[in-house]
This record gives sequence, C-alpha cells and structure tokens, in this order.
Amino acid sequence: MATLSLLPSSSSSSPSSSLLRRHALALRPSFLPSPHRRSVTPIRALSSPSPSPPAALTQDDLKKLAAVKAVEYVTSGMVLGLGTGSTAAFVVAEIGDLLASGKLTGIVGVPTSKRTFEQAKSLGIPLSTLDDHPRLDLAIDGADEVDPDLNLVKGRGGALLREKMVEAASDKFVVVADETKLVTGLGGSGLAMPVEVVQFCWKYNQARLQELFKEEGCEAKLRLDADGKPYVTDNSNYIVDLYFKTPIKDAPAAGKEISTLEGVVEHGLFLDMASAVIIAGKDGVSMKSK
Amino acid sequence: MATLSLLPSSSSSSPSSSLLRRHALALRPSFLPSPHRRSVTPIRALSSPSPSPPAALTQDDLKKLAAVKAVEYVTSGMVLGLGTGSTAAFVVAEIGDLLASGKLTGIVGVPTSKRTFEQAKSLGIPLSTLDDHPRLDLAIDGADEVDPDLNLVKGRGGALLREKMVEAASDKFVVVADETKLVTGLGGSGLAMPVEVVQFCWKYNQARLQELFKEEGCEAKLRLDADGKPYVTDNSNYIVDLYFKTPIKDAPAAGKEISTLEGVVEHGLFLDMASAVIIAGKDGVSMKSK
Repeated sequence: MATLSLLPSSSSSSPSSSLLRRHALALRPSFLPSPHRRSVTPIRALSSPSPSPPAALTQDDLKKLAAVKAVEYVTSGMVLGLGTGSTAAFVVAEIGDLLASGKLTGIVGVPTSKRTFEQAKSLGIPLSTLDDHPRLDLAIDGADEVDPDLNLVKGRGGALLREKMVEAASDKFVVVADETKLVTGLGGSGLAMPVEVVQFCWKYNQARLQELFKEEGCEAKLRLDADGKPYVTDNSNYIVDLYFKTPIKDAPAAGKEISTLEGVVEHGLFLDMASAVIIAGKDGVSMKSK
Repeated sequence: MATLSLLPSSSSSSPSSSLLRRHALALRPSFLPSPHRRSVTPIRALSSPSPSPPAALTQDDLKKLAAVKAVEYVTSGMVLGLGTGSTAAFVVAEIGDLLASGKLTGIVGVPTSKRTFEQAKSLGIPLSTLDDHPRLDLAIDGADEVDPDLNLVKGRGGALLREKMVEAASDKFVVVADETKLVTGLGGSGLAMPVEVVQFCWKYNQARLQELFKEEGCEAKLRLDADGKPYVTDNSNYIVDLYFKTPIKDAPAAGKEISTLEGVVEHGLFLDMASAVIIAGKDGVSMKSK
C-alpha cells in the first residue's frame, strides 16, 4: 500500500475554487487512467504531512478538496458510479461543472441513490443504471470510516445497498474522505455502522445484531427520521445502526455473520472494495492505494 | 436418517376427515414431543411403501394427509411457526379445528406471510411475531422440492424470506409434502427456485443469477402476477425464479454464492434446516428424519 501526500498551496486563506484546484494536485497511482487535465504537477511522496497548512479550511472545504482530486481521474467516455452523501455531492457537482464546460464528454453516471439521481439530473449528467451498464469503469464515493487496510464503514447516509451494488460492479472504486474519517479499526468512531433490514420483525434482527457484537459492547438502534418515525431506505427497508464501544475485532468474519441473518438486506462494512482513498486534511491531500 | 412408512387404511375410497385421520397414523421420531392425542397407533417401519393403496386420493387429499400427521406433533402451549402455501394451509386449518374443539390449548402461532396471518386470525389462532417470540418450539410448512438429505426448495408461494426467518428460529422444523415434491437433486423438478431481490436493478441481478448457474442451464425469469406486472413480495421486493435444466451441483456452495450478490434479499434453498419431512403418497404416509 502506498501513501502519498501533497503540499498544499499556502498562498490564500480563502477556500475558493481556484484554491481548491491548487490543493488538488495530481496523484496518479498506476491503477488509474491518466487524468483528464494536462497541467498536472508531479507527485511528491512524503512520509509526513506538510508543515505549512493553509488557514481556516472548514470540513466542507476539505471534502471539496478531496472531491476535486478524485474527479481528476475521470476521463471522457467513462461509465461512472456516483456516490451518495456530502462528499460525494461535491464529486457530482464537479463532474457537472466539467461536463458543462466541455472538459469532459461522453460520461454516463450510475447514481447510488434517489438523492444523487436528482442532483446529477439537475446538472445534466447523462444517467443510466446497472441494468443497462452492468460494468462500470470507476466509482467515486465518500465513506464514514476508513481503516488502515482501506476497509470502510459506509451508509450513514442510508444508501448502503445501492452504493455497494454499484461500487462492487466498478473496476475501480475511489473513496474521498476528510481526515476525520480515519480509524484504526472499523466501528472505532463510535458512530453508526448501519445494517439494512426488512421491516418484518426488525426488533428480532435488532436483538440478534446486538447479540452478535456483545464483545464489542454493541448497542443496536433503529434509525429514525426527523419526525421520529422509522427511517425508510430507497428499498423500503429499515436501518438498524450499530454503535460499538470498541472496534470490531474481525471485520471480514463480522460481515459474513451479519449477512447470514435472515432479513438482513445489506450491511455497511465495505471490505476489500476500495482501490484507493483520497484523504483531505488540514495539512493537505493524501492518497492511499492498494 | 430414518425412513418410516405407514400402511394406509384401505377401508374407504372417500377422502373424508375420518379417513384422513386413519391415514394419519402416529409417527413419533425421537426428536419430537409426544403427540397430543392419546389413541396413537404404533409406528411401523417399512422399507417399502404399502402394496395396497386406497383408491382415488387427489393431490389435495395427500396434502391433507401429511398436514394432519404433522399436526399430531403439536402439543398444548407450543409457540408454533405457521407456514405458507397449499399444504401449510391444511396445517393451519387443522390447528384451528383442534383449538376450537379444545383438544389443543395455549398455542401461539407465528405466521410466515400475510395470507397465513389472515387465515390463522380467521380461525381464532392466537398470533404473535418473532419480535415477541424469538424462539419457536416447532414450525410446520410445505416445500416445493425435497432432496434425499432433506434439503429443500421453498418459496414458490412467494413467502420464502419470512418462512426462512421463522423456520430458522424454530427448535424443530417439520416439512409436509406430497410425494410429487421428492427430487434427487435440488432444482431437479425443472420448476422455479425463487430468489427474492430488491426492485432496484433487478435485471442486473437476474443476469448475474443466470450467469451463476450457467453449467446447470439456468434460465432466470422475473416473476409476474396475474396482471402481467412484477410480483411484489410482502417485503416490497421482486422475485427472480430460476429454472434449471439439470439439478444444482453443489447446493451449499450455490446458497452462499447467491447470498453474496448485493441486492439479493433471500433465496429458496433451505439447506440443513428440516428436522423431518412427512411425505404423503398414493401408497401412504412416510416420514424421513435426521
């Protein structure tokens, strides 16, 4: 696994688009196609982050920074998986911009949620589905947690099933995240690891899921919407969120055990799926790839 | 595995309830509790079916015969999984009769479909769910195929997910079937093996399922309702029915492979789940147990 880091520009404290562009220097790992832009800066591999961070970058700025970087690996003619969530929304917006300006052409997007479908449609991105495009060149999406082996927790945005379907069908899957998402072990953020379950007897599955992770001090809670009603996914299912006191001991085994529970539709452990993770931190943009 | 067969009565050609009772002689394998009736006939283990079949038993008569036999193993106070389908409907009807007559008391039924819920409710059977009764004493249900190891294909009635949830939660699971359901290998009937999939990109999963069983000459078809529209399960999903030219080569491996496909909610292979199968044939009732 390679870790690359880039020195950010320190010429401005205003996170404008041009600043973001300057931050988003080109990283070109061997597995990815050539970036669509010509003016790329050589990769600088560093063992530690930059000592001169730009001031006042918000978490949204960092997300944009990672998003713009990831989109450099989109080339004209690609079939592209479009993720869901706040970081992915920046990716979709950037792709929309590049299509509008003619810098990208012939893109077909496969959205991973109704929300992303609406956003991409409003930006004029040509859209398709897995039914018509069962193989994708590249998917770009955010993540809720990233561990040192590039395993992920995803789905706090509620789109885990469609995200997993689309990203598993993609030749390459690039994750964009800000540095707050890095964990030493999955579940380690203490925030939700979602499991999508059928509505039928969800309490039964909630109890079974909590029992499964007894050692990790797991608390399993039904996700509610703003009105306090059960949150319903795009697939008419519920989500049981798992909160761990200690990280999951054996994520691959956990993934298999969750999947064997009847009535579980999908879970938020995305294991051995990411080709690379682009991480934006206050000290710059770095990339880890497999 | 034990195979037991019973000589049916040949005193009548009218498949009345009393005839069915006479056919339904008591089989009491060691794993099951004592039958609730006192007037049981000793088990007769035979290596081959009776040479003197009663005349003119229809397939429905055979299903009733197996159903009545299975219900003998229901005892008062049990929490009971209630299956779905034509044979299971006879089971539910019989339980309703026994409750109405006071021969059974304190039964709690956990239905496996909305249909079964309605039938059981109309018969006054007290009902519950897995949420409130996560462990069941016994489940009784039909099957679409039964192989020599008591592995099953189920779900042609469309209730495979709820059936699997309830039956996996039962200490014992007794299958009732007529002899037309016996196969040498699962998929061998040439009839549907159902897979419940989310509606999202069902064509993609249909194609993947067909590809998975290329060697078995599989044809994967979306199940339609009477109006030619996609059949929608109780869980708002679709069903892709798999039709095999030759039986599935390795059912446990097939079950695992199907389950790994994102968007697959459940499949109709019920492997290593049945405790016993009661089979009604023109030559009598027989039982196989593990």
